[in-house]
Amino acid sequence: MPYKLSELAKRVGGEVSGPDVLVEGINSLELASEKEISFVESGRFLEAALRSKAGALIVPPALAEKLPGKALLVVPQVRAAVAKIAWLFYETPKHPRGVSNLAFVAEGAEVHPEASVYPFVYVGKGAKIAAGVVLYPGVYVGEEAEIGENAIVYPNAVIYPKTRIAPRVIIHAGAVIGSDGFGYAQEGERHLKIPHLGRVEIGEEAEIGANTTIDRATFGSTSIGPGTKLDNLIQVAHNVRLGRACVLAAQVGITGSVEIEDFVMIGGQAGINKPVRRGAMVAAKAGVAKEVPPGQAVAGAPAMEISRWRRCVAAYERLPEMIKELRELRAKVAALEEALNERKKDHGS
Amino acid sequence: MPYKLSELAKRVGGEVSGPDVLVEGINSLELASEKEISFVESGRFLEAALRSKAGALIVPPALAEKLPGKALLVVPQVRAAVAKIAWLFYETPKHPRGVSNLAFVAEGAEVHPEASVYPFVYVGKGAKIAAGVVLYPGVYVGEEAEIGENAIVYPNAVIYPKTRIAPRVIIHAGAVIGSDGFGYAQEGERHLKIPHLGRVEIGEEAEIGANTTIDRATFGSTSIGPGTKLDNLIQVAHNVRLGRACVLAAQVGITGSVEIEDFVMIGGQAGINKPVRRGAMVAAKAGVAKEVPPGQAVAGAPAMEISRWRRCVAAYERLPEMIKELRELRAKVAALEEALNERKKDHGS
Amino acid sequence: MPYKLSELAKRVGGEVSGPDVLVEGINSLELASEKEISFVESGRFLEAALRSKAGALIVPPALAEKLPGKALLVVPQVRAAVAKIAWLFYETPKHPRGVSNLAFVAEGAEVHPEASVYPFVYVGKGAKIAAGVVLYPGVYVGEEAEIGENAIVYPNAVIYPKTRIAPRVIIHAGAVIGSDGFGYAQEGERHLKIPHLGRVEIGEEAEIGANTTIDRATFGSTSIGPGTKLDNLIQVAHNVRLGRACVLAAQVGITGSVEIEDFVMIGGQAGINKPVRRGAMVAAKAGVAKEVPPGQAVAGAPAMEISRWRRCVAAYERLPEMIKELRELRAKVAALEEALNERKKDHGS
Repeated sequence: MPYKLSELAKRVGGEVSGPDVLVEGINSLELASEKEISFVESGRFLEAALRSKAGALIVPPALAEKLPGKALLVVPQVRAAVAKIAWLFYETPKHPRGVSNLAFVAEGAEVHPEASVYPFVYVGKGAKIAAGVVLYPGVYVGEEAEIGENAIVYPNAVIYPKTRIAPRVIIHAGAVIGSDGFGYAQEGERHLKIPHLGRVEIGEEAEIGANTTIDRATFGSTSIGPGTKLDNLIQVAHNVRLGRACVLAAQVGITGSVEIEDFVMIGGQAGINKPVRRGAMVAAKAGVAKEVPPGQAVAGAPAMEISRWRRCVAAYERLPEMIKELRELRAKVAALEEALNERKKDHGS
Repeated sequence: MPYKLSELAKRVGGEVSGPDVLVEGINSLELASEKEISFVESGRFLEAALRSKAGALIVPPALAEKLPGKALLVVPQVRAAVAKIAWLFYETPKHPRGVSNLAFVAEGAEVHPEASVYPFVYVGKGAKIAAGVVLYPGVYVGEEAEIGENAIVYPNAVIYPKTRIAPRVIIHAGAVIGSDGFGYAQEGERHLKIPHLGRVEIGEEAEIGANTTIDRATFGSTSIGPGTKLDNLIQVAHNVRLGRACVLAAQVGITGSVEIEDFVMIGGQAGINKPVRRGAMVAAKAGVAKEVPPGQAVAGAPAMEISRWRRCVAAYERLPEMIKELRELRAKVAALEEALNERKKDHGS
Repeated sequence: MPYKLSELAKRVGGEVSGPDVLVEGINSLELASEKEISFVESGRFLEAALRSKAGALIVPPALAEKLPGKALLVVPQVRAAVAKIAWLFYETPKHPRGVSNLAFVAEGAEVHPEASVYPFVYVGKGAKIAAGVVLYPGVYVGEEAEIGENAIVYPNAVIYPKTRIAPRVIIHAGAVIGSDGFGYAQEGERHLKIPHLGRVEIGEEAEIGANTTIDRATFGSTSIGPGTKLDNLIQVAHNVRLGRACVLAAQVGITGSVEIEDFVMIGGQAGINKPVRRGAMVAAKAGVAKEVPPGQAVAGAPAMEISRWRRCVAAYERLPEMIKELRELRAKVAALEEALNERKKDHGS
């Protein structure tokens, strides 16, 4: 369905500059056709914008006058406008309501008639599936697990028993929620398995990436706060508490019982072994081995404050030269010592 | 089912101190109710123990007299006692015996009548499923694979053909056992795939975490020793030999054909490229690029002996200051050289 | 089926030296029986070759005369010959053609009659499955996805809608192709999800490892070039472009929109945040934070040219000694300064 640029402007809170064209889709600067709108996040993309065939452009105020003659949608926040407009052109898949006759729902499970349960889904005893939920093919929902309104669980994701999933959560394919925590008690040479009696709780609008794993708590809950976004292949161990609106990139690992507060951002492949406080930022590949204070950015393994880390890295890269300098200095100092000794002898005698 | 504290004491080999209360469950210090037992692993938790509502506490001898008036279960090893008592309160899921009529078992596969095969399980030709085995929904068991007594395979795990799984092994959801090793022969610009004719063998009581992958051998076997525990998202490449009673944390990666001997512990996200000998310990995020001797602890990437690594890290963190010092020394030495030259001139003339 | 050594020689372009024995299989030096052929990649394995019971050996010309009396197959490239001969002895699984009556194929999907669709497979509306394709149990193929001739998709792999998979691609168990990219727009404290309107395209003969995840593009395509091999548990983010004949080891992570050109090799657990040019090599655990020029080998995090990295690592390992030397130099320089001052006083007065 096409939209007039002025209508898009109304929907995202922006203003039109130039012709009020008709827009039939959204695309990147490189791929957009004359019928599509594209976007210019910053001056860095100005050249690509001038080359683009896009029929209209979403731009920040600062770039509006640098694109004369173009049909522009001027907005304060380009990225948010892109998200909202892309949803307008997103073809929401139509899910058949009800339970497929190729699915298995155990007696005593409650599946809301407005939920969509695809073939080869298994729903265990006592599980509750709310209205609007989509369980894609191959999803497993264990006994007494609960999935809130309009949550989407993609194919072959596994929800272990007793997990609580809040409304509008998205769980991508292959994610495993609620597997046993990795806890053992050593007795002689044997590792006794500690049963994990707790559960996992995931807050509203959280999103869990493909093949990410979240272990259940030993006691109590492993919890993911509302609005928190986890990328693919992340490991969240037992009893971790992740706050709200955090963003974790792919392949991050979090050790058991660690607390991560609200609004934390973590880069890919980082490992978190200690608490990360509110609003802190952990760089990709960092290894957090001591608590990160609120709002601080850290990097490196072991992680340290990021500007200090940058200086350490710069010094590290100069190490071969430092060694050479050290050697030269040693030689000079030895020469000086000798010279002084010579002098002493001259004078002393 | 509730237990008297004295009965728990008998079962775990401990002694009661204080009232012989009735215990209905086990929980953490924070969450335990008056009807539950909790535990105090060390003095670090003493304050939390004093605040806890728990009706009884599992404690080591050293802490017994610091908790006067409390109902105590005094044991030499708290963690082992916790594991054993938690199992008493763990509600073992009841699995229907037999093959679900929504499962597929190929002709010529042997499924013991005492095994539990859930809906949407696929068992290939020639596979053998022993008594007490649980195959959760969506599990795939390839041709001629064998799964020993009482092994549990969680939903959507994949067991490739010819894999051998010993009794009492636990395989968590989404784990992939026996996929092709990553082996190619370069011919010009092409990578010729080398077929993997070997298999994977997993020893008794081993546990394999969610979404962990273990590749089959090129020839022979990739093997996981008895009692070895693998956390989630671990990669074990073709022909790796992992000994017994090893413990590997999440996201560890092991290169093809590497041997890891018995009783090795490996921290999360470590990468192992060379043999690790008996009883050695590899820290999280380490990169093992040379053999680790028996019993040694290593850290860092490339990994080195851990106390040396600590000194290197401490020095690394001081690098910016070292550079400054080096600069100052250079200036001082230059000044000294000049002063000495001046003097020489004074004297020499 | 057994082959005469001379026939194997014909098939792989080699020459027989010694008796023209009959060969019934291929195996490693340690495991091969008298009826099997094995291989000696280099002089390093000469001793094992002399101990081996193998009835024949594949060897490079340089080793031929070091194994007198043995039945030898002399070839220029041992590894390529091993790959080709192993395929001769590989028992190709026989897949029943057609759609299992326990699978689900949506109306309007096209499944070629020569394809094999196992139980519990789901094929969505508008999907196209070509001749010779094997969809193992539990595979999900989303709407309008296309899978080319003779591609193999192993159990429980998930192909999201609109994905394009070229002929002869292999996708291992649990891999997820086409999940949403990890893209959000921040608005106040909320992360607005950006819908991902693009797709994933995988080129001919590419191979995707178990539990690897490849995200769909925001717009356009995330693409994997022909002949490129991805190991297990790799993360490929949205809009990444991977060239042809690349080889990526397990647990590598690639950030969104990064380009990796043809013939690139990447070691395990590396993280790639910037473009990697044609033929470059990235070592295991490296963190690529700036562009890697064509043909260059890099290592370390942040990554640098590999010989420089080796020198930095060597220096790093000497840091504790450097600190000591620096301290000693400081003391010596202070002593020199004092001595010179003393002298000055002596002379000056």
